[in-house]
Amino acid sequence: MIQVGIIGANGYTGGELLRILDKHPQAEVTIATSRKLAGIPVYKVHPHLQDLKLKFEKIEPGDIEADVVFTATPHGASMNIVPQLIENGIKVVDLSGDYRFDDLEVYEKWYGLKQSHPLDAVYGLPEIYRDQIKKADLVANPGCFPTGAILACLPLVAEKLVDKIIIDAKTGVSGAGIKPTDTTHYPNISDNVIPYLVTSHRHGPEIQEKLRKFSDVGVSFTPHLVPVIRGILSTAHTFPIEDITSSYVKELYDDYYADEPFVRILDVSEIPKLSSVRGSNYCHIGSFDKDENGRLVVASSIDNLVKGASGQAVHNMNIMFGFNETESLDMLGLHP
Amino acid sequence: MIQVGIIGANGYTGGELLRILDKHPQAEVTIATSRKLAGIPVYKVHPHLQDLKLKFEKIEPGDIEADVVFTATPHGASMNIVPQLIENGIKVVDLSGDYRFDDLEVYEKWYGLKQSHPLDAVYGLPEIYRDQIKKADLVANPGCFPTGAILACLPLVAEKLVDKIIIDAKTGVSGAGIKPTDTTHYPNISDNVIPYLVTSHRHGPEIQEKLRKFSDVGVSFTPHLVPVIRGILSTAHTFPIEDITSSYVKELYDDYYADEPFVRILDVSEIPKLSSVRGSNYCHIGSFDKDENGRLVVASSIDNLVKGASGQAVHNMNIMFGFNETESLDMLGLHP
Amino acid sequence: MIQVGIIGANGYTGGELLRILDKHPQAEVTIATSRKLAGIPVYKVHPHLQDLKLKFEKIEPGDIEADVVFTATPHGASMNIVPQLIENGIKVVDLSGDYRFDDLEVYEKWYGLKQSHPLDAVYGLPEIYRDQIKKADLVANPGCFPTGAILACLPLVAEKLVDKIIIDAKTGVSGAGIKPTDTTHYPNISDNVIPYLVTSHRHGPEIQEKLRKFSDVGVSFTPHLVPVIRGILSTAHTFPIEDITSSYVKELYDDYYADEPFVRILDVSEIPKLSSVRGSNYCHIGSFDKDENGRLVVASSIDNLVKGASGQAVHNMNIMFGFNETESLDMLGLHP
Amino acid sequence: MIQVGIIGANGYTGGELLRILDKHPQAEVTIATSRKLAGIPVYKVHPHLQDLKLKFEKIEPGDIEADVVFTATPHGASMNIVPQLIENGIKVVDLSGDYRFDDLEVYEKWYGLKQSHPLDAVYGLPEIYRDQIKKADLVANPGCFPTGAILACLPLVAEKLVDKIIIDAKTGVSGAGIKPTDTTHYPNISDNVIPYLVTSHRHGPEIQEKLRKFSDVGVSFTPHLVPVIRGILSTAHTFPIEDITSSYVKELYDDYYADEPFVRILDVSEIPKLSSVRGSNYCHIGSFDKDENGRLVVASSIDNLVKGASGQAVHNMNIMFGFNETESLDMLGLHP
Repeated sequence: MIQVGIIGANGYTGGELLRILDKHPQAEVTIATSRKLAGIPVYKVHPHLQDLKLKFEKIEPGDIEADVVFTATPHGASMNIVPQLIENGIKVVDLSGDYRFDDLEVYEKWYGLKQSHPLDAVYGLPEIYRDQIKKADLVANPGCFPTGAILACLPLVAEKLVDKIIIDAKTGVSGAGIKPTDTTHYPNISDNVIPYLVTSHRHGPEIQEKLRKFSDVGVSFTPHLVPVIRGILSTAHTFPIEDITSSYVKELYDDYYADEPFVRILDVSEIPKLSSVRGSNYCHIGSFDKDENGRLVVASSIDNLVKGASGQAVHNMNIMFGFNETESLDMLGLHP
Repeated sequence: MIQVGIIGANGYTGGELLRILDKHPQAEVTIATSRKLAGIPVYKVHPHLQDLKLKFEKIEPGDIEADVVFTATPHGASMNIVPQLIENGIKVVDLSGDYRFDDLEVYEKWYGLKQSHPLDAVYGLPEIYRDQIKKADLVANPGCFPTGAILACLPLVAEKLVDKIIIDAKTGVSGAGIKPTDTTHYPNISDNVIPYLVTSHRHGPEIQEKLRKFSDVGVSFTPHLVPVIRGILSTAHTFPIEDITSSYVKELYDDYYADEPFVRILDVSEIPKLSSVRGSNYCHIGSFDKDENGRLVVASSIDNLVKGASGQAVHNMNIMFGFNETESLDMLGLHP
Repeated sequence: MIQVGIIGANGYTGGELLRILDKHPQAEVTIATSRKLAGIPVYKVHPHLQDLKLKFEKIEPGDIEADVVFTATPHGASMNIVPQLIENGIKVVDLSGDYRFDDLEVYEKWYGLKQSHPLDAVYGLPEIYRDQIKKADLVANPGCFPTGAILACLPLVAEKLVDKIIIDAKTGVSGAGIKPTDTTHYPNISDNVIPYLVTSHRHGPEIQEKLRKFSDVGVSFTPHLVPVIRGILSTAHTFPIEDITSSYVKELYDDYYADEPFVRILDVSEIPKLSSVRGSNYCHIGSFDKDENGRLVVASSIDNLVKGASGQAVHNMNIMFGFNETESLDMLGLHP
Repeated sequence: MIQVGIIGANGYTGGELLRILDKHPQAEVTIATSRKLAGIPVYKVHPHLQDLKLKFEKIEPGDIEADVVFTATPHGASMNIVPQLIENGIKVVDLSGDYRFDDLEVYEKWYGLKQSHPLDAVYGLPEIYRDQIKKADLVANPGCFPTGAILACLPLVAEKLVDKIIIDAKTGVSGAGIKPTDTTHYPNISDNVIPYLVTSHRHGPEIQEKLRKFSDVGVSFTPHLVPVIRGILSTAHTFPIEDITSSYVKELYDDYYADEPFVRILDVSEIPKLSSVRGSNYCHIGSFDKDENGRLVVASSIDNLVKGASGQAVHNMNIMFGFNETESLDMLGLHP
C-alpha cells in the first residue's frame, strides 16, 4: 500500500482523485491539502465523499511524507512545490501546465510565466509515453483539451497523412474549475454556447508541440464552453494529403490503439457521446467521415475530469508503480 | 458465480443492471432479452457498455436458464412472466408495480389492471424488509418515488410522530424511461418544471400502504418533472403531532439508519444534493428544518435509476443470495 | 413622454427594465446608474441591448431628475435612497423588500435590518391594490415568490376556503441575481434541485402578511433552486375546510381574475408551464386537482424577472401614470 | 390589413409565425392549417398563445383565400402545394428546402427527391436579395444553418479574401422540430454534444451554392446538436489568401452590413452569445481572431426559429408587401 498526497485537494480534480483512489487496493490518500480549508472535513466540499474521514490540511511541501504526490495546483504554483517533493524522493504527477512543454520558450510565452525550476518530466499521455512513464519521477499530466485532441489525431499524424488540423472543441463547465465566475454563472452559460480564447488558448501550442514529434503539422485550436457539466467533444477537421477512405482510417485507428485499455474506436460514421464516457477514463473516437472538399473528420469524447485530468493522473501513478494499469479506473460511463 | 437474466434489457434500468453487474465477482449476466432488438449487440443501445459482448435475445420466459432474473418489464407484463420463472426455480426481482401491493384492490384501482397471477412477494426495500428478502423467491422492487419518499419519512412514521405528510417530489427525466415522448422532448422539458399526475400518480398509494404498516398516516403526493437526467429530490412536508426539535429528529434518523450501508443522514439544515448520489446507490437525507406553523421538512436524494431501481434490485439480489450486501454497489456519487 | 431613472441598472432586473421600456411610447430611460460600472456602455453588461446608447452613471439620488425612478437596489439600500427621491417629487417603484411590509417588526426580524426611513407605500400587486397604486407616490414591488404564490392562492383565501397552505416553489437561477456564487456555479446547479432556506426564506412572511389581509391562514413556504434560467413554478398544497370540487375552484378563479390583463386560468388538470410565460408578464394558474386526503393543489407559473420583478414594476408605472396598463408589456411567452 | 395563411402551423416555426404576427398592425393570420389537429384550438399546442382564438383547420391549398401564405411544410410537400397558391395569386414564403436551390441537380442529389414543380423563386436572405424579394411572388426562406453561416462569411467571400471555409455549427434542439425522437429525448441530449450528418448535411451545399455566387469557395460544414433550446452558434474557420488584420476584417463587416436592420457587428474578440439574440430576429457577428497558422475565425449567433426561420419569413413578407421591414420584428433578445 503506497501513501498518496494531494496538494490542492479542494478543487474538482482533487475531488476526482479522491473518488477514484477511494477503492484503490494499493494506494491510500493520507494527505489532502488546502490552504484555505485547513481543518474542514473533505466531504463538506465534496459532498459525494460522505464517508471519507480525511480533513484538509495546511502543510508545507517539504513536510509531506508520501510515496507519490498529485499536485493539483495552479500554473506557476507547481514549479515552486514540485522540486522539493522530487528532492525528498517523492514521485510526482503534476496536473498543472508547468512541466508539460519541452520548449520552455513556448511555455513562457503562452503562460506569461518564467519557468524558474525546470526539471526533467515525462508527458503523461500513456498512449505515447508509457515506457518513459514507468521510469519517471515526475510526470506532467496532459491538459484536458490536448488529451482529447491528440488521441483524435495521433494515428493520422504519426502516419504523416495530414499537415493541417482544425480542432473545434466543446467542453463542459467543470473544466473551468470549482470557482464561480461570470462565465460559469448558470444563467450565462445555460442555453448558450460560448467560444473563448478563440485563437489564443494555451492548449493549442501544447497539442501542436506533442503532435509535431510525429510530423510537421499545423494545429489550429478553438475551444467552446457548452452547457454540460463534464466532457469534451473534440471535432478534428483534417485535410489528408493523400486520398484515403474512411474505412482505411478506421482500421488505422483500430491498429494504432489495439492494446490501449482506455481507447475505443467506433465504427465509421458512429459518433462518440459524452455520456458514453461520463465519469469514466475512456476515450471514444469515431466519425471518420469525409466530404467533397477533401476534409476528413475525426471526433473524440472524454470526461475532462477523468481521462482529461484525475483518471489519467491515476493511470500514470499505476504505471509508475508497476500496478495493474486499469486499477480503480475500470468504472463504466454513466449513460444516460 | 450465479447466472443472471435480464428481461427487458433495452431500457434504462436494463442498462443500469448491466453496468452495475459488469464488475460483480459472483454474478454474470448471461441473458439480456429484448423482443424488438433481438440480435443487436447490447452496446448499440447502451453506448457506455462498449466492451460488452452480449447481444439482445428473444427468448420465452419458460426457456430461460438462470439463477436469478430481473424482470424490467412494464406493469401488466410482469405478471405474465414471473410465475413461470418462479415455477422453474428461478429467483426473481421484479422491477414493475405488479407485485408491490399487499392490497390487490389498491393495485387494481390505480393500475387499471387485473392481477391475474398473484404471488407471495416481499417488498424489496432492504431498510425495512431485509430479513424477509433473505428468504424470498420473489422480490417486488420498490418504485423510484416510494424509495426516496419512504426513506425520508420512515423514522417519523415508525415513531408515530406524524399523521399527515405532503411529498413534493422532483424527478429527473430518465425516470420516464428510454422512449421519447412529447413530455421528454428536450425543448419541452429543458428550462421547465412540470408537475404531472398531480394527485393521481400510482406511487402515492404505494408510499401510503408501506408507511401505514407503521402508523396511520395520510400521504399526499405530487411529482414534478425537472430538467435533470438522473435523481429524485423528495421534499417531505410533515406536521408532527408532538413538539420535537430538529436535532431530536436528526438523532432519531441517525439511530434508525445506523447500520444501513446505503443511507446517510446529513446535519440539521444540510441539504441532500442529487449530485452527491448521482450514479450511486446511496440515499442522502437532510434538512430537518421546522417553521413557525408547526411544519417539519425532511428532504432526501437518490439516483432514480440506481437506488430507485437497478441498484436496489442488485442490493436485493445480494441479500437473496447471501452475498456481501454492497457488492458491486459501492461506487461513489459523481459530483459534480 | 416621461423620464425614467433606474438605480442599480447593472443587474438582471435592471436589464429587464431596459428591455421592456425600450419600446414604451410614453416613457424613456434617461438615467441608468451603477456605482461600479460608471462610464461603461450598458450593452457591455446586457449584450442583448446592443443598440442602446445609454452608459451607466454614478449619480447621487438627490441629483436625479426624472418623473419616476425604479430602485433596483439591495434590501437596506433602498431605504437610504427612496425618501430623497420622494421628497424631490419623483414617483418611485422600489424593487427591494424595504417597503413591502405593513408590520415593520416582521420586516426587521426577517431582514435583520432596522427600517430607518419608514414611508407610506402601496404593495404593488395590481391584482389586489390597483386603485391604491393609481394614487401612490411609492410602490413596493412584490417579491418574485410572493407574486406567484399569492396569485395562486388568493381566490381561495379571499373566499375563506383554506386555513393552511404549503407553498413548494421552484425557481430559475436568475432569481439569485447576476453575481456568481457557489450555488449558481453551473456544475453545482445543473442536473440538481436544491431546496434552500427551507423554512426561513423572507418571502414566506411576505406571502403570509398579504394573504392574511383576506383571512387567517398559515403559510408554510419552501423554495427550491432548479436548473432553469427564468421562471417560478409554485405548487400550492392546500387543505380546503369545505368540500369543494375542482371545477368549482376553477370557476372561482375564472371569476376572480376575469378582468385581469396578465392572469390566465387554465382548465382543470392543465398544468402551467414556465415556457408559456417565459419573457412575458403573464401568470398562468392551473391544476385544481384534489386527492383522497382532502388536499387541493393549485399551481402557478411566472417569469421571475418579468411578472416577478421588472414587468410588474412597469405595470405599476403604467398604472401610476394613467397609461394603458399593458403598454410595452404585451409580449407573448417564448415557447419553446 | 393583409390576410395570412400558415400551412403546417402545428410545428415550432408555425408557433413562431403566430407569435411574431400576433402584434403585426398590417397582417392578420386567418388560417392555420394542420391535417392531424383540425378543430383543436391553436393554444393547446402552443401554450404561450393562450389568448389566440384560432383553431387548426384542414383545408386544401386550392381553397385557401389569403394575400400571403407561409408554407411550413416538409421538404417534398411544399412543391405539391406552392404552385397552386401561386396560380391563385397568393404570394408565398416557403420554409422548406424545395425552392432554395438554383441548381436542381444539387437539390435532387442532397434531398433524394425529384423537384416535380420547379418555379422561379428568390432566395429569401434579405441581406443579399432584398431588391429581388420586393418583386417576388415566391420566396424560398433560407435554412437555419445557412442563414447564420452565410452572414458570418459573406463579406470575406464577396471580397474574394478566402477560398476555404470550415463551418463548425452548434444548434439548439428546437431545430430538430416539434416531434420527439431518440436524439431529442432529454436524457440523450442533455449534458451531451452530438455531431451529426458530419459531412452530409443538406445545408452544406446550400451554403456553398449561395456563397459561390460571390467567389469560388470550398465550404466544409458540420453541425452539432447541443443542449440548448434555441440558437445557432456558427464558428467559421477561414484561411484568408491575403494577410489581413482582425481590425481590417471588422471594419469590412461594419461597412458591408452598415444598413442592415438585423445584423450587428461586435468588436474584435467579442463573442456573439445565443442569449443576446434569443427570441429575436438579430444576427450577431464577432470574434475576427487570427492565429499563427493563418486562420481567421468569425462567429455568428442567431435564434434558429426566428432569424433562422419564422422571423426571417416575416421579414420577407414585410419586404414583399412594402411594409416597414422591421414591423413586429424589433423585439430584443431575451438575456439571460
